[in-house]
Amino acid sequence: MIKVAIVGGTGYTGVELLRLLVTHPQVELTAITSRALAGTPVAELFPSLRGHCDLAFCEPDLEQLAACDLVFFATPHGVAQAQVPELVQRGVRVIDLSADFRLRDIPTWEQWYGQQHAAPELAAQAVYGLPELNRAEIAGAQLVACPGCYPTAIQLGWIPLLEAGIVDPGQLIASAASGASGAGRQAKTDLLLAENSDNFRAYAAGGHRHQPEIEQTLRGVQPAGDSAARVTFVPHLVPMVRGIHATLFANLRSDQSAQELQELFESRYRDEPFVDVMPAGSHPQTRSVRGTNVCRLSVLQPQGRDTLVVLSVIDNLAKGSSAQALQNMNIMFGLDETLGLESPALLP
Amino acid sequence: MIKVAIVGGTGYTGVELLRLLVTHPQVELTAITSRALAGTPVAELFPSLRGHCDLAFCEPDLEQLAACDLVFFATPHGVAQAQVPELVQRGVRVIDLSADFRLRDIPTWEQWYGQQHAAPELAAQAVYGLPELNRAEIAGAQLVACPGCYPTAIQLGWIPLLEAGIVDPGQLIASAASGASGAGRQAKTDLLLAENSDNFRAYAAGGHRHQPEIEQTLRGVQPAGDSAARVTFVPHLVPMVRGIHATLFANLRSDQSAQELQELFESRYRDEPFVDVMPAGSHPQTRSVRGTNVCRLSVLQPQGRDTLVVLSVIDNLAKGSSAQALQNMNIMFGLDETLGLESPALLP
Amino acid sequence: MIKVAIVGGTGYTGVELLRLLVTHPQVELTAITSRALAGTPVAELFPSLRGHCDLAFCEPDLEQLAACDLVFFATPHGVAQAQVPELVQRGVRVIDLSADFRLRDIPTWEQWYGQQHAAPELAAQAVYGLPELNRAEIAGAQLVACPGCYPTAIQLGWIPLLEAGIVDPGQLIASAASGASGAGRQAKTDLLLAENSDNFRAYAAGGHRHQPEIEQTLRGVQPAGDSAARVTFVPHLVPMVRGIHATLFANLRSDQSAQELQELFESRYRDEPFVDVMPAGSHPQTRSVRGTNVCRLSVLQPQGRDTLVVLSVIDNLAKGSSAQALQNMNIMFGLDETLGLESPALLP
Amino acid sequence: MIKVAIVGGTGYTGVELLRLLVTHPQVELTAITSRALAGTPVAELFPSLRGHCDLAFCEPDLEQLAACDLVFFATPHGVAQAQVPELVQRGVRVIDLSADFRLRDIPTWEQWYGQQHAAPELAAQAVYGLPELNRAEIAGAQLVACPGCYPTAIQLGWIPLLEAGIVDPGQLIASAASGASGAGRQAKTDLLLAENSDNFRAYAAGGHRHQPEIEQTLRGVQPAGDSAARVTFVPHLVPMVRGIHATLFANLRSDQSAQELQELFESRYRDEPFVDVMPAGSHPQTRSVRGTNVCRLSVLQPQGRDTLVVLSVIDNLAKGSSAQALQNMNIMFGLDETLGLESPALLP
Repeated sequence: MIKVAIVGGTGYTGVELLRLLVTHPQVELTAITSRALAGTPVAELFPSLRGHCDLAFCEPDLEQLAACDLVFFATPHGVAQAQVPELVQRGVRVIDLSADFRLRDIPTWEQWYGQQHAAPELAAQAVYGLPELNRAEIAGAQLVACPGCYPTAIQLGWIPLLEAGIVDPGQLIASAASGASGAGRQAKTDLLLAENSDNFRAYAAGGHRHQPEIEQTLRGVQPAGDSAARVTFVPHLVPMVRGIHATLFANLRSDQSAQELQELFESRYRDEPFVDVMPAGSHPQTRSVRGTNVCRLSVLQPQGRDTLVVLSVIDNLAKGSSAQALQNMNIMFGLDETLGLESPALLP
Repeated sequence: MIKVAIVGGTGYTGVELLRLLVTHPQVELTAITSRALAGTPVAELFPSLRGHCDLAFCEPDLEQLAACDLVFFATPHGVAQAQVPELVQRGVRVIDLSADFRLRDIPTWEQWYGQQHAAPELAAQAVYGLPELNRAEIAGAQLVACPGCYPTAIQLGWIPLLEAGIVDPGQLIASAASGASGAGRQAKTDLLLAENSDNFRAYAAGGHRHQPEIEQTLRGVQPAGDSAARVTFVPHLVPMVRGIHATLFANLRSDQSAQELQELFESRYRDEPFVDVMPAGSHPQTRSVRGTNVCRLSVLQPQGRDTLVVLSVIDNLAKGSSAQALQNMNIMFGLDETLGLESPALLP
Repeated sequence: MIKVAIVGGTGYTGVELLRLLVTHPQVELTAITSRALAGTPVAELFPSLRGHCDLAFCEPDLEQLAACDLVFFATPHGVAQAQVPELVQRGVRVIDLSADFRLRDIPTWEQWYGQQHAAPELAAQAVYGLPELNRAEIAGAQLVACPGCYPTAIQLGWIPLLEAGIVDPGQLIASAASGASGAGRQAKTDLLLAENSDNFRAYAAGGHRHQPEIEQTLRGVQPAGDSAARVTFVPHLVPMVRGIHATLFANLRSDQSAQELQELFESRYRDEPFVDVMPAGSHPQTRSVRGTNVCRLSVLQPQGRDTLVVLSVIDNLAKGSSAQALQNMNIMFGLDETLGLESPALLP
Repeated sequence: MIKVAIVGGTGYTGVELLRLLVTHPQVELTAITSRALAGTPVAELFPSLRGHCDLAFCEPDLEQLAACDLVFFATPHGVAQAQVPELVQRGVRVIDLSADFRLRDIPTWEQWYGQQHAAPELAAQAVYGLPELNRAEIAGAQLVACPGCYPTAIQLGWIPLLEAGIVDPGQLIASAASGASGAGRQAKTDLLLAENSDNFRAYAAGGHRHQPEIEQTLRGVQPAGDSAARVTFVPHLVPMVRGIHATLFANLRSDQSAQELQELFESRYRDEPFVDVMPAGSHPQTRSVRGTNVCRLSVLQPQGRDTLVVLSVIDNLAKGSSAQALQNMNIMFGLDETLGLESPALLP
């Protein structure tokens, strides 16, 4: 059994981690910390866990965390970078669900997140936890930085094309949409049901923190010598709870048939347990992956023109965060990668 | 392994059954019938099952069904009563999710469902599949009639009070609300998103088919000599997908303290794995049971007056239909009652 | 032209008042106060008002308010009672949309609202602004207390029965449901879309502040000598923005035919421009009154038993608050009662 | 008074037309036809119109229609082209809300709509009813073809850029999203609330009928000699009732500052009563135009790169269909263009 703790378990990624961990056959959950709610039973905050989790939130305690095999950080950015170094030094493995260790370029991180980075040397060692790209490194990693939700959906959609070098990397456009849980469990007026139901809007169209993360990953997979990927990324808020849908546009450089494109995607993801390339012409729906670690993709070439469209859906809290964290854990601890992640989506 | 088939798997109870069966460790799913979609892969209709179910819908075939240990009927009313007799005769066990065998009084059935009953003698043998009431009979049953969704939520809320005889059985009022999946996967204008989103309405307030079912069950648990339970039942449609919420009103006959009432409910359901009596004063939410076989209850006594309020929530497709069907299966085949039903709710 | 000001215009009742006032042909809007947002253009907070309202929120200024013919208070409870006395003394007429002057019994008010009332003598003079009950008094009133949203829907549904004395007043049960805008524009976690979408729940089932208001009104219309009306009231939260649906249960004392009941309602509301008694057996929908001042009602007698069901729908922000406030204004200033309130509902 | 009839009033554009016409001060509504519902009172199908519309649906009658000043067609495509020629010949003016007369190139129409066009000569005479482009021609038109919903939002967003010739016309990308009412009031499984709530999906990504309409309009406004506009258009379905949000991407050809772009849009639409250019950096929301004829726009230049983003929102049933039809009517009959269209949006 893997001894596990969660730092910061009161948000949506926290409760989603708990949902998955309490039925995982190889995990012993020892602690869930929350300064604000220390002493409150977890199942009081999240009644869905009544009968599944007897723990109460507790004050973070270094000794308790250090006694674990693995600590998940489900905290706002800035927290993990302050606490992870000591845990790593004491040999604990860490999966950080926050943005603290996603960007390798520290000045870029500091510019987008508006604060000084507290552990730049660790950021350099952290492995970016996208198993479809870094499976081997994840297996041996001590610190894994879980990808952001939008980047997971967008990167999986573009990686085959960028690796193959067959689209113009300077003209990448991502129009993506997320359910409201993506904004977290925060008491903000503009996240109210009365503000967002029967409504649709873009936000952060002028620049979103996930944009440099996407560019970093795409640039990492491009053939040597190719010009650097440049992404225009506009996120939107959908009046739904869970789900991310990315609509990706890229211009073909060369003549590829629809069938060749389909094969490119199918062969790239043939062995991936959690990436599902749908038949050509499909329109994947977010609900088809609700509660699962699956990314569903399809590739289209509208009217046979040069502009390719890739559609990519994930559950922002699952493959976009907590389930992918478990996938990383399974890899790090030599378990079957799908353990605890086998259930089909809840549909309808 | 239990060899299982599903008759009529293209609706919401069908896909929910499939979601649960494909990960059940003791089930071998052999066939899913649909005349209309025979030949279509199940995962084409329900992409959430891609990678989980390789079957295609098939024409119903008596020999194939007769070779199973268990056949689920997830069909509109009228179908099971025509097909079940032959299966039962050949020794197959049957769980019927439709309304065909729920009412023991055939004239009442015929009046509410507007047709002649094709197998009245089987209706008399069928066991009503509410485990909290009929666990022993279910274990030995050949034919189980799964309760309706509203009746499950309402009956579990009232059974402790009616068994104890402490409320006036002539004045029972149930105001209940269901998500739209309760109406099934039918192409009807009044079930469109554009008709129901940002909307709330009662329906069938003049009389709903679940009303006689509720009265039948409640009358069955009343102390001998008590006057027969009479229920006024008004269902409502909520702009959500899953969930039933029942708000139950009953008048206390005698002086019971809030604490005694709480203890009555807790002791009645102490050993029930899927009934959760919440702390006094709680307001159970439908999302806290989404995708699970759990019924969450609470009892309140507003302002200390005589009118008791019981709040009861279930997932209409799960405890209200397919998950309860699996619970019945587990009981019938001597398995751990919770097998395949352990996952916590998907929240948020 | 009526010179009008609004105190506290940043909430949902405020923006709804503005929506109606900016197109009202007899109103000159002079000021909208908000301490927190003083200086901010109204149309910056509410872009729907771009091109319709050039005002900015301003600090409350007694002289400016005193120069108006009418001041609306769209403030949390406790504010109006502190500020209204001076305005009233200076001859300004006031319509209070808050709860400050709804209850005539001050100890009851203080018990439910948890604070001392600052202007008990004014509460005694205030007219309860339900035009269907108090039209003549409203016409001459200096201070009108607008009814609560739930009370409006529930009272209009029960008044004909209570006036006629034909139901048992000791057994009145109201199960009602509201859209999320009823909770106001407040930054609270439990009002988030991610908490309430695809969810349904009761709240305040142990006691809601609108309960004494409903009982006060019903007791006021009962025949002399009848036992005092007692109401059990359970509110619910629907994942929608606007709308209240009340499902009302009452026991007939005598033999009334369905037709007599229908006629009772139709004759009671024959001359009411904003109460629409639907054909017997109808199920009014909240969306059929969205954005309007209309209350739609229907009366049913399920299975011919003694328990009557009345269904009543309003828009909580319109007839349940701001549009009813305008109806009161029209009456107070001798205008056509429907002026500015003529538009049909926005459907779908 | 303008004598008006509606052909085909049972869908969402029909009921929206009715909502606006019944309060329009210069309109006398004489007939609403529906073969299927002839004899049914309009207010029975749409209870929101109780008290506003006493008409019943009637069989289409040429003489009755010919006696009108104006006939609206709110029919599926194919109907108007069969019936309009005779009306036009008899001098009746027609506003067609369907797609029948939107495309001037008949082969293109026939290819996308899969049938032969019945009145190609009329298609050549029809005026495309986008007032911001064709106001003068609309004033004198006998037959106006109302723009599609997506085209209205998308064209208004791109016209200033295409007219000025400052973006690459060969790389236009439109990612747009619509509420479910855009699909009409049709009994289809994939439009059910249970299929679309808590869900987001693209559709028709391989080619949508509005694409050639958009290209036709944009090509019409380009400077002479510019290469023809080519649009990649992907529509999405949002779990909401009303609203279209278009996110438009285009590459700047030359160095324009953000301020110059803002001024370009503001000056292009300065005199337009129904186009609202928001301050730079704004994110218009669909709910800010709900129920109105307004298009709200904003222009952004993410991170100062070459790819411009224009955000454009309309109400698909209002500016995207019925309200724009009324704007056209006002222009055709010399009325104030905003008559009957003055109300602010219903928010929240």
